[in-house]
Amino acid sequence: MASETVINAAGRIVPLEINGTPVIPYKGVGKHRPEGRKYSPPIATCSDYPADGNKVVSSLEEALRLCGLKNGMTISTHHHLRDGDLISNKVFDIASDMNIKDLIWFPSASFPCNDPVIKYLEDGTINRIEGSMNGPLGRFVSEGKMKGTAVLRSHGGRVQAIQDGEVKIDIAVLAAPSADSFGNAKGTGGSSACGVIGYGKADSMYATKVIIVTDNLIEMPCFPMEIEGNYVDYVVVVDKIGIPEKIVSGTTQVTKSPDRLLIAELTAAFIEKSGILKDGVTMQAGAGGTSLAIAVFVHQILKDKGWKSKFGFGGSTKYMVKMLEEGQMGHILDAQAFDLDSVRSIENNPNHIAYPVFNAYNYHSKGNLTSLMDIMILGATEIDLNFNGNVVTHSDGYLLHGIGGWQNCLHARNVILPIPLFRDRIPVIVDEVTTLCGPGELIDVVITERGIAINPLRRDLIESVKGSGLPIRSLTEMKDEAERICGKPQKPRFEDEIVAAVKWVDGTVIDVIRKLKPVK
Amino acid sequence: MASETVINAAGRIVPLEINGTPVIPYKGVGKHRPEGRKYSPPIATCSDYPADGNKVVSSLEEALRLCGLKNGMTISTHHHLRDGDLISNKVFDIASDMNIKDLIWFPSASFPCNDPVIKYLEDGTINRIEGSMNGPLGRFVSEGKMKGTAVLRSHGGRVQAIQDGEVKIDIAVLAAPSADSFGNAKGTGGSSACGVIGYGKADSMYATKVIIVTDNLIEMPCFPMEIEGNYVDYVVVVDKIGIPEKIVSGTTQVTKSPDRLLIAELTAAFIEKSGILKDGVTMQAGAGGTSLAIAVFVHQILKDKGWKSKFGFGGSTKYMVKMLEEGQMGHILDAQAFDLDSVRSIENNPNHIAYPVFNAYNYHSKGNLTSLMDIMILGATEIDLNFNGNVVTHSDGYLLHGIGGWQNCLHARNVILPIPLFRDRIPVIVDEVTTLCGPGELIDVVITERGIAINPLRRDLIESVKGSGLPIRSLTEMKDEAERICGKPQKPRFEDEIVAAVKWVDGTVIDVIRKLKPVK
Repeated sequence: MASETVINAAGRIVPLEINGTPVIPYKGVGKHRPEGRKYSPPIATCSDYPADGNKVVSSLEEALRLCGLKNGMTISTHHHLRDGDLISNKVFDIASDMNIKDLIWFPSASFPCNDPVIKYLEDGTINRIEGSMNGPLGRFVSEGKMKGTAVLRSHGGRVQAIQDGEVKIDIAVLAAPSADSFGNAKGTGGSSACGVIGYGKADSMYATKVIIVTDNLIEMPCFPMEIEGNYVDYVVVVDKIGIPEKIVSGTTQVTKSPDRLLIAELTAAFIEKSGILKDGVTMQAGAGGTSLAIAVFVHQILKDKGWKSKFGFGGSTKYMVKMLEEGQMGHILDAQAFDLDSVRSIENNPNHIAYPVFNAYNYHSKGNLTSLMDIMILGATEIDLNFNGNVVTHSDGYLLHGIGGWQNCLHARNVILPIPLFRDRIPVIVDEVTTLCGPGELIDVVITERGIAINPLRRDLIESVKGSGLPIRSLTEMKDEAERICGKPQKPRFEDEIVAAVKWVDGTVIDVIRKLKPVK
Repeated sequence: MASETVINAAGRIVPLEINGTPVIPYKGVGKHRPEGRKYSPPIATCSDYPADGNKVVSSLEEALRLCGLKNGMTISTHHHLRDGDLISNKVFDIASDMNIKDLIWFPSASFPCNDPVIKYLEDGTINRIEGSMNGPLGRFVSEGKMKGTAVLRSHGGRVQAIQDGEVKIDIAVLAAPSADSFGNAKGTGGSSACGVIGYGKADSMYATKVIIVTDNLIEMPCFPMEIEGNYVDYVVVVDKIGIPEKIVSGTTQVTKSPDRLLIAELTAAFIEKSGILKDGVTMQAGAGGTSLAIAVFVHQILKDKGWKSKFGFGGSTKYMVKMLEEGQMGHILDAQAFDLDSVRSIENNPNHIAYPVFNAYNYHSKGNLTSLMDIMILGATEIDLNFNGNVVTHSDGYLLHGIGGWQNCLHARNVILPIPLFRDRIPVIVDEVTTLCGPGELIDVVITERGIAINPLRRDLIESVKGSGLPIRSLTEMKDEAERICGKPQKPRFEDEIVAAVKWVDGTVIDVIRKLKPVK
């Protein structure tokens, strides 16, 4: 752990080595130029695969054995089954039974249902997790209990790391709501439908071995083949890959909190009055209650004006589906589905299109979808006076969230963060973010229930709302107001030990998270 | 050219080096184990691409200049525009104007419309073609006039060569009937629709630079994105990418020749009586008149029996589409469309699915579609007494055809070659094939208008038609009969100089074509 450190371009002290491998310090937005070539997995040959195309083996354990599971390997999974995932933990149950040690788990995200892997982090089955860690897992990391150093990446950073060979996946274990015996797989159909499974696309292309786990083996061809069978080694059929009601919400709901509704209203008013909402607009918002309320307001404005959004990028929800179905959105491009209406829409509406993050978010690609978006609605745990954002730690210093697509989405034309002025009496606007996840130059507007702060770099936006009557304020004013109400919270105290690294979209290290000092 | 030679596992004398690069002699079916890793193109970065996603540049010339076109580069194109292609030749017109020399043209196939490139082979703009060469181009090669050595590969061998880095594509120029400004592209829509453009998929993934040329720029997202925009560097909009009536036939037609109809009838009778035609059968046939007649007969049998083919793999034709629409075929998986009915079907029928050869035919993949097919109907220019097949040269020694998917398709369960006993009074069954393209062990049945020969290795098939009344004969009997009618043709005489290499599906060299001695 005692690696040499430097101060990166964001002024953060970062190591030159993580988990024994050299890393590159963050150089600034768009400043790092990748060298070299994409990662190249071993060449396969058809002579090793059954001529009849039937790759079904008897169990996940058999498949893992056939893949040569051994100490130190990197195992990847996707998170499309969300909190209903029954497969990821199973992999480590099997590994533990086989007395395998020092695995690296490389999920596209983790959920509370994955908390049981803590015991495998404790007993050495798993060396570390490279991926989002929420709740108890994050707490485990913050307390310095994980053997290896966590590496946090955005969804796009994850596929960049796969493509560039920063992470070499030995075995990808990809759960699939439907699959055929050749390994073609998709996110719809069966009793565990999750809509799309595109988070597994890069894994399937670059992993040495690929296992599809399904509870719905259908006749060839399983189509659309989100995962292409010619990348797949083995297919495993199980009773249940997930718990349906935890995979997608029955329905996502707009916020009922008056404060959050006010934030949503202010946000809708801002994007309307500033003129960034227009006919043909492209927009992306999350699935949180405030974002959904904004989507509802925006839908109404589009309707009233007779405008239509060209496309929206999902995380899809019933509110986007409604816009699509009622004619206020041309297409939904979709990386993941959050509710049952979205799953149904993906399956039935030809204008609701699976669009993997590999194609949308990979910064080491020939263009990204995110920079095409006009309006991007995002959250944050903290924003500082320089508009820098934090989404992984709370002000108490604990790692409690993954980055998700947040860093990738910062590349949109107008990035707006509707956030409450405080949460549980902890102010959200701070002097300096506990952990830097995104540089302030990419964050354009912060909207709280007490006002709207526009980044001074965006003179055009400042001009656009002059005389609009919107409550334009500075971040300092809003911070001061929050502190008058809640008081200034004590800063967390850290040890020197680095427990997690935060990567930027280009694979450089933008910040680190250090072990928390125990509170007496 | 004076490379060392060896005798390969098929008994053919082949060089150890082609165009200055070492090659591996054929080792037998399934015997060559690839080593090493897939080819890895350079890592790109979004910071080099327009944030608004608009990659349109003013002309193909500008795009080629921006791609850094220079001497010795490898330029790839796909052949979905068939004999109506207006783009491939254009690339070399531009290169010639720029005084570029020694290019390698790597098309997925060439057509008579490409004959004008002969002048660029003559003046040194193009060093060689690695791909099929028909008619005058083939003649040019056979006469030893091409500077470099031609390399002939199957459709699957071509993507294997791309994937494995045997051929490193510098610039892929991919014509697209529809595309958006980000570079997402597809084979339907507009005035030059060709159905699918999957032959360009591997090129887009592995080329250093990718240019999309379209005459139908549509709004983002162009979907389904057969070519994914995140692999694309530039988009060029032209008036016309192709001549519609030459891109696909208005309609494909069954043979009217009584002899060919007899062959088709015998073939249908054989696959019915042998029991290889069954409910759920998977079958593939070409778009030639005899194959189409077989398809019509088979359709009727399926109808009569109440059977249904699980899926067919296309080259699709209106006869396959009819089976799909009338319920005798579950799905068409499609690598290319041969007629207008097929194009319409791909666009409108969700069970008519684009399935690129990259996924279906690449032998260095985790399984192939071809080995899943029950019945495969193929042609040949020559068959010898050991069931070896030739599809590239005629008995006069001239290179006149490409391999197409022929070698890949030999991996099906039952490979049947319905061929006439003679063409233009030249017998098709010979003592030894002029050029070996496929080993006899993979060819199961040869059906001519004078009888059916079953490969002795297929005892099961021989048993299956005992007492069926079908005219089962030996290849020798049929060869003798043909020679009694036509006489035994003189063998062509060759120089030592190798003008073309024929690769097997695994990248090894199965045979070569030598320069023809001028006939006095």
